[in-house]
Amino acid sequence: MPLLADSVRVTEEGVTILDRRVFPLRHRWVLCRTVEEVAVAVEEMVTQSSGPKFAATAGMVLAARDAARLGPGAAGEALREAGRRLVATRPTNNGIRDAIAAVLAVVDDRPGEELLPVVEAAAAADDRRYRDRSAALGEHAARLLPDGAKVLTHCWGDFYLMGAVEAAQKAGKRLEFVCTETRPYLQGARLTAATLVEYGYEPTVIADGMVPAALAAGLADVTLTAADRITLDGHVVNKVGTLAVALAAREFGVPYYALVHAPDPHAPGLADVAMEDRDGAEVLHVLGHRTAAEGTRGFYPAFDATPPRLVTRIVTERGVFAPDRLADHFREDA
Amino acid sequence: MPLLADSVRVTEEGVTILDRRVFPLRHRWVLCRTVEEVAVAVEEMVTQSSGPKFAATAGMVLAARDAARLGPGAAGEALREAGRRLVATRPTNNGIRDAIAAVLAVVDDRPGEELLPVVEAAAAADDRRYRDRSAALGEHAARLLPDGAKVLTHCWGDFYLMGAVEAAQKAGKRLEFVCTETRPYLQGARLTAATLVEYGYEPTVIADGMVPAALAAGLADVTLTAADRITLDGHVVNKVGTLAVALAAREFGVPYYALVHAPDPHAPGLADVAMEDRDGAEVLHVLGHRTAAEGTRGFYPAFDATPPRLVTRIVTERGVFAPDRLADHFREDA
Repeated sequence: MPLLADSVRVTEEGVTILDRRVFPLRHRWVLCRTVEEVAVAVEEMVTQSSGPKFAATAGMVLAARDAARLGPGAAGEALREAGRRLVATRPTNNGIRDAIAAVLAVVDDRPGEELLPVVEAAAAADDRRYRDRSAALGEHAARLLPDGAKVLTHCWGDFYLMGAVEAAQKAGKRLEFVCTETRPYLQGARLTAATLVEYGYEPTVIADGMVPAALAAGLADVTLTAADRITLDGHVVNKVGTLAVALAAREFGVPYYALVHAPDPHAPGLADVAMEDRDGAEVLHVLGHRTAAEGTRGFYPAFDATPPRLVTRIVTERGVFAPDRLADHFREDA
Repeated sequence: MPLLADSVRVTEEGVTILDRRVFPLRHRWVLCRTVEEVAVAVEEMVTQSSGPKFAATAGMVLAARDAARLGPGAAGEALREAGRRLVATRPTNNGIRDAIAAVLAVVDDRPGEELLPVVEAAAAADDRRYRDRSAALGEHAARLLPDGAKVLTHCWGDFYLMGAVEAAQKAGKRLEFVCTETRPYLQGARLTAATLVEYGYEPTVIADGMVPAALAAGLADVTLTAADRITLDGHVVNKVGTLAVALAAREFGVPYYALVHAPDPHAPGLADVAMEDRDGAEVLHVLGHRTAAEGTRGFYPAFDATPPRLVTRIVTERGVFAPDRLADHFREDA
């Protein structure tokens, strides 16, 4: 199992989170002793992609430990408060919201001491469910990749990408990978590339502006990314730069596949998704080193939205869908 | 005058070149005592954009000094040999080739001592001509920019961009700028941004993958880049990532303007342009700091080619042309 598949751990001391801001250049773990520290770690991008979801369930276990001494009612309220704090950390990806909802669903008026094992079990079940859904998604995604496929991916697809790679490897398919470096945090050059190396590949890293040139040079014949959110009308909200990949894919006649467990049933369209802006200063630095001239300002939209007409197929845990047929994901017989 | 407009200087000791690999984060000048050292400096990207052209004429002055002790015939041959070395440094931009041709046009069988002042005058004339042509181009480009225009530019447009800015300022037009950082060398975040600050602007720096997001957010209503080469059939060869800008511009209905003194009369189409690949290791580092996981390889196509259908207008020293009417540039009455 790649390290990033086990990068949030509950220990006796609290929650330890692998610092994705520096991995794999450095292996540093951040210890969070409280829910507030977990929330801040998520806000400060210690972990991202699926990391905040696992940090959220782990944070709820911490909260349940704290609430163990509280009586009936108060314990449940403390857990709901912890859940609100964790959900507020990052608005665009619905993974945290869903994970907290799954844990809170088992919270009732029992005293804190009795709630702790219940919350621990719910957190573990949600984590397991996330992994299982990713594996199912990966099976569907791998079927879209022919043997020998050259896959260009942007940012870090996390469990979705790992699911696809593991399913393709199980099927005996050879793959090649091109990773955009994904400025400003370099998730592609670091997280995606390091994990693909763990899987035995030698990925090619390109700068974010080189996607059209890479496709023109024939380095990739498929483009594929995870999605932080996909609306019911097929808009793909993902790490900024995804739209640039999709535009290049259209120009060069290469498919663009977006991966997500499920479309968001609460988001009929883009207007229902909060698009997060982050601190522009990040763009003026690389790994803490100043890269831009003084006197400038940075602009850092964390996400962009790719319209359905630029999306070839959307892969969910239930199958492969045209972006205008996403409702089929929710059909009983899907 | 911005520092980058005077960044190659002939001194008694040789040619000093402002190191564009680190400017403006550091102000470092590289002294080249021989033509070979000038050539290596160009190959190693100490200077780029128009810099190699100025380095080439300066290098020819160095060569003429060395040849001053040679007799008739031998001096001219030494200069032609120096010219071949300088032209061989970088194949895609035709600026070096044209500058060397202009200097060599005055070289004849005179003894070296007599050739020196002739070469010095030809080099100075070629430098002046380059500046004058850029100013003319800038006048035409500025006419395309309405008052209040928000201009997104990629990489470093050098004298073309400076010409446009100076003409717009002379006409009293207010402008805003968005600069892509332009990995791997960060010319946008450093050279373009620093020079725009010198001109009194506060440019916004974005990562290269953020161009569509910036246009979606309304940060720019015009995109504009220089070109290293434009073929007679309207293909724009420029720093890799330019094609990504043009694709985003089309998607968001924003014009894309390409700036070049003149189309290359020796390049009817793309097949006539040598596209340079550079060392992929550059993509795995930022300013010398490792950014990518171990076990990866980098891909660094220095240029990409934007097809004429994605180019709104091409601006030359003679005017503004639709990409399919470039031949008009060469008409007597243009």
